[in-house]
Amino acid sequence: MIRIGIMGYGNLGKGLECAISQNSDMELFGVFTRRDPKSLKLLTEGASVYSADSVLDYKDKIDVLVLCGGSATDLPKQTPQYAKDFNVVDSFDTHAKIPQHFEAVDNAAKEGGKIALISCGWDPGMFSLNRLYAGAILPEGKDYTFWGKGVSQGHSDAIRRIDGVLDAKQYTIPIESALEAVRKGENPTLSTGEKHRRECFVVVAEGADKARIETEIKTMPNYFDEYETTVHFISAEELKRDHSGIPHGGFVIRCGKTGAERQNSHVIEYSLKLDSNPEFTSSVIAACARAAYRMSNEGMTGCKTLFDVPPAYLSALSGAELRKNLL
Amino acid sequence: MIRIGIMGYGNLGKGLECAISQNSDMELFGVFTRRDPKSLKLLTEGASVYSADSVLDYKDKIDVLVLCGGSATDLPKQTPQYAKDFNVVDSFDTHAKIPQHFEAVDNAAKEGGKIALISCGWDPGMFSLNRLYAGAILPEGKDYTFWGKGVSQGHSDAIRRIDGVLDAKQYTIPIESALEAVRKGENPTLSTGEKHRRECFVVVAEGADKARIETEIKTMPNYFDEYETTVHFISAEELKRDHSGIPHGGFVIRCGKTGAERQNSHVIEYSLKLDSNPEFTSSVIAACARAAYRMSNEGMTGCKTLFDVPPAYLSALSGAELRKNLL
Repeated sequence: MIRIGIMGYGNLGKGLECAISQNSDMELFGVFTRRDPKSLKLLTEGASVYSADSVLDYKDKIDVLVLCGGSATDLPKQTPQYAKDFNVVDSFDTHAKIPQHFEAVDNAAKEGGKIALISCGWDPGMFSLNRLYAGAILPEGKDYTFWGKGVSQGHSDAIRRIDGVLDAKQYTIPIESALEAVRKGENPTLSTGEKHRRECFVVVAEGADKARIETEIKTMPNYFDEYETTVHFISAEELKRDHSGIPHGGFVIRCGKTGAERQNSHVIEYSLKLDSNPEFTSSVIAACARAAYRMSNEGMTGCKTLFDVPPAYLSALSGAELRKNLL
Repeated sequence: MIRIGIMGYGNLGKGLECAISQNSDMELFGVFTRRDPKSLKLLTEGASVYSADSVLDYKDKIDVLVLCGGSATDLPKQTPQYAKDFNVVDSFDTHAKIPQHFEAVDNAAKEGGKIALISCGWDPGMFSLNRLYAGAILPEGKDYTFWGKGVSQGHSDAIRRIDGVLDAKQYTIPIESALEAVRKGENPTLSTGEKHRRECFVVVAEGADKARIETEIKTMPNYFDEYETTVHFISAEELKRDHSGIPHGGFVIRCGKTGAERQNSHVIEYSLKLDSNPEFTSSVIAACARAAYRMSNEGMTGCKTLFDVPPAYLSALSGAELRKNLL
């Protein structure tokens, strides 16, 4: 059994707890939290909640410590910190800062003789893998990533900060005509705003100026101004009833040419349609924890990403079973 | 530069020659053939054609020998034979016989201290990888593979053997309603015949009995009898004009559940739409040749499949470039 420790019990940590229960070769050792441990109740029988400060005491009882904090402030500190003493997995997803995160984590993990698998999830993660595979197969081509339909937490938060707004949910939605142009191999040049539109469901205070709020949303720099944006004002009850999920998904599409005259076109498409973004992300993380455990057992150390993981290491099946049933 | 030798110059060998020209870190050393070497003309300047019998003479000049023969009779002999002296890549695609092929090749490659990467292409190959990844992420779920729209060589040949038929092309086509049921997460039980229909374009001799030929096709055991089959009689000119390509493709779809009550559904879908089946297959093979070369340089030996290849090994980009641009 692979003994997993969870650091942080938000949506991702809770999703990981469920994912562990779906993998018979894993068990949850416990959850570590900065909150009062007594304030948390786990779903898993036999697993305990501990103070985050005490995690080093359980060094020998945890095979892989999964860091379920946020990428903005938690992971840049936590992953290098814990990679000295634990095999760790994180879902660091600030794309532009991955190289510097990798460096910091790599130094720490090598110092401790541990393995750290970073940026596990779907983007970065499965989408990244599909960009890599498709580009390696079709070197003369272009890849496109579309996100959605799904909830953007950052954009929802931005709307909530507007005066008079009580609550809000924002969906990022791929523009169908852009998707079709890409699938046809037209290799169009598309800005993010030409690939996606934004749909907002907003609950406002009684008597609030809806026209002013709608304008503030649609003209908000970086978040909305470059996008086709639709705003719907709804009641708190409707928001709760129809928009309480955290769905997401998207598409990675690459078109490329082959042949003596580059006369033949090929389209590789990978897509996800997810009812729960954090639960899917944590399902990827669970498989990555298995891979980290195996790579560590083989003596590998340092920082790795899914690009470095032989796919078989992610699966509970043996090499012979995989070849017989899935190849 | 990775020096590639090509054994066999049919559709696959020709496709590989083009693929090598699209990868700046590879060069074609030469083509080996059982035909008269003088009878072949290559596209690549500076590369030569040699007799298959002479390949051992060039052992030190070839980094990876790619075996472009057929799975029925060529590869079961050739891959174990050449794996003793060369790093080899093949596209062995008889799914049921992969375990025994693996064993034979593994013994030979280990004996020679070489690496052999087998069953490279899209199915087996990229489709297999997607079955593995999706199953590792969503252990509670079911995966489906659909093939087409594409040309089945075996079915086209079977039609050509019917008395009165001059030429024929058969397309395997996924049934849209089955695809939709799978995408909805209904996890239906579907036979191959419930997933695919068959469309045949047939050229017959003057005065041939079309009704008899159509019946013979539609009732042919194993090939057509369990499928919805459509037969179109066309002229030789129409066949040449409209059906001379070798397109193919397909879908791998997995639906799975997560959450404490398994209340959330997720759909992972991978699809290919290929103008040329052999050119796409050989594009996968070219990337696999790069991976085999690197794995051999690291001292690995024995038989491997794409399941064992760290994805980064397939790409011409460095680890740092991959993390910066694709992660």
